[in-house]
Amino acid sequence: MKAAGALEVGEASSRASTPGRGLNRGISILDLVLRLVAVAGTLGSAIAMGTTNETLPFFTQFIRFKAQYSDLPSFTFFVIANAVVSAYLILSLPLSIYHIARSSARGSRIVLTFLDAAMLALLTAGASAAAAIVYLAHKGNARANWFSICQQFNSFCERISGSLIGSFIGIVVFILLILLSSIAISRR
Amino acid sequence: MKAAGALEVGEASSRASTPGRGLNRGISILDLVLRLVAVAGTLGSAIAMGTTNETLPFFTQFIRFKAQYSDLPSFTFFVIANAVVSAYLILSLPLSIYHIARSSARGSRIVLTFLDAAMLALLTAGASAAAAIVYLAHKGNARANWFSICQQFNSFCERISGSLIGSFIGIVVFILLILLSSIAISRR
Repeated sequence: MKAAGALEVGEASSRASTPGRGLNRGISILDLVLRLVAVAGTLGSAIAMGTTNETLPFFTQFIRFKAQYSDLPSFTFFVIANAVVSAYLILSLPLSIYHIARSSARGSRIVLTFLDAAMLALLTAGASAAAAIVYLAHKGNARANWFSICQQFNSFCERISGSLIGSFIGIVVFILLILLSSIAISRR
Repeated sequence: MKAAGALEVGEASSRASTPGRGLNRGISILDLVLRLVAVAGTLGSAIAMGTTNETLPFFTQFIRFKAQYSDLPSFTFFVIANAVVSAYLILSLPLSIYHIARSSARGSRIVLTFLDAAMLALLTAGASAAAAIVYLAHKGNARANWFSICQQFNSFCERISGSLIGSFIGIVVFILLILLSSIAISRR
């Protein structure tokens, strides 16, 4: 590559500088690994919550006591949010691989950071709404006259509590992804 | 400033280039304005939720029917999250003003982006947990035998619903702040 003017000289030299480029490559690889971790977490959460249901061994003539995620709107939202976020993460993998190859890309990194921030908000909203309801299911609330349902639906409660973990791992990963992206953008 | 080598030439020319610097200044000013909007939103939410209480006009010998935010742990978390985020935003204002003066700062912008992402998660968690409970207070849930409390505590319910708005404005502002920061970092 031939440097033509002052600006091009600067750009070419900063692009060719090996340490900055190596660091950006490392960041891009870490970015890819973290995305795979987040895919596992959010997909696991969506499946764990979506497939849980418990039918109590006793029933009356009219009612069969059954609990599943779609009984509570917050859990439905949790499943949808986790599914959307894991679909987004899978779609972002090719771009993440592209960043390993072309570590100086800036525009696509900015777009990815913005979408990551939006997905962080969606995932946190789903996880937190579900966590609020899980807490209520465990403890109940005497002031509002809402009773705990975990005495009856014991295994259902354990399952929904456990399914939150993957989402919260996803939240931490997204915060790290935004940090990594901004470092990579600053390095070019 | 005298350009000595190829690297210095590039750096000096990109730093001195007026359009990039002007854009970064504009971004920094927008950053400051958005932070002020978010302070107003989150502080308003915290105060609106924190000061609401309703005492029903009738009472028995033992119980006085009273509703306030501390009856529900999710609302307490909402108030704390909003207070913490607005305190963070106020503390970040000097740094934001510093970025207007020194538009080429990178390190401090990266730190700010990371903290913004963490605060976005905290604020979304608080707002979403409170929204899940507000929804339950309005609609109740027949499957879990949780009844709506909004028929009794009407003005309390309107107040807590309204107090969510400021938080959701704050969430949108944080996503925009992260986008602006990453653009500013890429421009130097």
